[in-house]
Amino acid sequence: MTNDLFLRACRREEVERTPVWMMRQAGRYLPEYRAIREKTDFLTLCKTPELAAEVSLQPVDLIGVDACIIFSDILVVPEAMGMELIVEEGKGGPRFPSPIRSRGEIEALGVPDPNSALRFVMDALRLARKRLDGRVPLIGFAGSPWTLATYMVEGKGSKTFRHLKELVYSNPRDAHFLLEKLARSVAAYLNAQIEAGAQAVQIFDTWGGILPPDEFREFSLRYIQQVLQLLRRNGAPVIVFCKDCSHSLEAIADTGPEVIGLDWTMDIGKARMMVGSSVALQGNLDPTMLYAPPEKIRQGVKSILEKFGKGSGHIFNLGHGILPDIPVEHAKALILAVKEESPKYHR
Amino acid sequence: MTNDLFLRACRREEVERTPVWMMRQAGRYLPEYRAIREKTDFLTLCKTPELAAEVSLQPVDLIGVDACIIFSDILVVPEAMGMELIVEEGKGGPRFPSPIRSRGEIEALGVPDPNSALRFVMDALRLARKRLDGRVPLIGFAGSPWTLATYMVEGKGSKTFRHLKELVYSNPRDAHFLLEKLARSVAAYLNAQIEAGAQAVQIFDTWGGILPPDEFREFSLRYIQQVLQLLRRNGAPVIVFCKDCSHSLEAIADTGPEVIGLDWTMDIGKARMMVGSSVALQGNLDPTMLYAPPEKIRQGVKSILEKFGKGSGHIFNLGHGILPDIPVEHAKALILAVKEESPKYHR
Repeated sequence: MTNDLFLRACRREEVERTPVWMMRQAGRYLPEYRAIREKTDFLTLCKTPELAAEVSLQPVDLIGVDACIIFSDILVVPEAMGMELIVEEGKGGPRFPSPIRSRGEIEALGVPDPNSALRFVMDALRLARKRLDGRVPLIGFAGSPWTLATYMVEGKGSKTFRHLKELVYSNPRDAHFLLEKLARSVAAYLNAQIEAGAQAVQIFDTWGGILPPDEFREFSLRYIQQVLQLLRRNGAPVIVFCKDCSHSLEAIADTGPEVIGLDWTMDIGKARMMVGSSVALQGNLDPTMLYAPPEKIRQGVKSILEKFGKGSGHIFNLGHGILPDIPVEHAKALILAVKEESPKYHR
Repeated sequence: MTNDLFLRACRREEVERTPVWMMRQAGRYLPEYRAIREKTDFLTLCKTPELAAEVSLQPVDLIGVDACIIFSDILVVPEAMGMELIVEEGKGGPRFPSPIRSRGEIEALGVPDPNSALRFVMDALRLARKRLDGRVPLIGFAGSPWTLATYMVEGKGSKTFRHLKELVYSNPRDAHFLLEKLARSVAAYLNAQIEAGAQAVQIFDTWGGILPPDEFREFSLRYIQQVLQLLRRNGAPVIVFCKDCSHSLEAIADTGPEVIGLDWTMDIGKARMMVGSSVALQGNLDPTMLYAPPEKIRQGVKSILEKFGKGSGHIFNLGHGILPDIPVEHAKALILAVKEESPKYHR
């Protein structure tokens, strides 16, 4: 492999400089991505391996990131479990018109065979891997069981997550029943991705942070751990990213990932002191900092590199996905700044 | 005063049981509040002392809370500083049609004399105090400078707070100029509230948590501290509530409030270990737990009382405002559970 900085940093091996990629790097801020989306709706793009592979590689070619994450959406898993998924342009995000509200509806969900129901993702991974030709590693991903449950039970985005919270607090048995089924589905899905060529996988727990710490461990982290226990990693590092969950950093490390992803609300130096002897850390620039001009972005990069300090075990990233209205030049400035400012921490 | 449990707990003096009130307790979950709102729009209610005092007292009479918070809105302060404020029913919350986007617009803002521009709040406090007649203490409040700035600069609610973040990261001097003006306005406003009869005041920093920890301290906490330094407390305890800011609990304590309000993402037992020797703690039940039936609510109450442990210095509250679709019986169940379950922690 030409550039394996990302994989080495995941394993806390020595690197010449800090590797960098961005969550949602294959996305709307790129004119080349928007050009494809003008002709193709979101779900069709997810389900057309040729196009999914193409947009996955765009940031590698155009921005110079050190890892390629496959273009897809976490909600293809609940769809493969039997739920109708609708993504309409400019209508407030994806939604499930028949959300899960009863035990019977949980029972009706299947645990899909990813190599048939989600074959399009595996095909996209194989194609992307071939086209990358070893330039940078390929990352697969899935939503955490809890985060998938938020969409499946609410039916759409939510401010209060009323229905899932009501399930958790009023009827925890059914919540556990749903989450256990999701854990098996997610594990099978990630295993298939690793077999299809993903060289690392990331679990996105975007909504673990809506729970109090005890409930986060019981309803979200417990099922992330189940997924990890069911994984056949074959050397592929696992990244666990739980947004707004810095209260449970040590507990996350205890589930056994190679890397913990940090959002921007935690000091990465403190996080390293707490868990840096057992895991690598990924993050954690505030994504809105990319609205600032390049010289300020460079200051932000330097500050995070300085907080992490010398030595390996850091993958630079944003603390959440890149926003769709960020100027491309600002994204490039971030990547360049990491490449130029980080070597001195690795001598 | 008949029931001064709240004030004694704020000062960490001995109490017979843990006092309890709820943020947004004068609100839409109460049929008696909705009855008044059917005849009166939101801003008119804020600006009619007779009605504002009436709805402020509703939860004292109907739910049995141990403190009365004056009914108002944090955005009356920016309005008094010269911004046009529009609140239309069912149209996505309040908004400023001409948000602050330039130095000139910051310069044009005034630091209002609260006893004229915000006299309706002072009149409401005086009326409420009179009608309470010592039954429970009366709480005044204001938004933090940072939180007021989010609305003033974005113009409305936001997911990414793009404009204010851009100001902070690109042009911090102007951000500081705005926040300094807000700190003076908020301090004058809270001083007037204490003079008008508020026996405690709470500062709501609803949006401090959107910043990384360093920026939280520089752009939010620093101005909360300025407000506290400008306060003439006259014995009135100050509560500082910063949502999603548990990363900076000790720094918040260092600003010198009597009480720190906690959202539901922090373990109140851990918080007590960290800062409980210098401040009282208020909180911190997940507000969505009130969707659960009364026996589950009681379990949640017991769990938080147990985490805090024995002794004074705890004011029971939700971790954020009560939601408008909570059944009244569930709110009553919460208050009753705190009253019945807490005495054993105070023997």
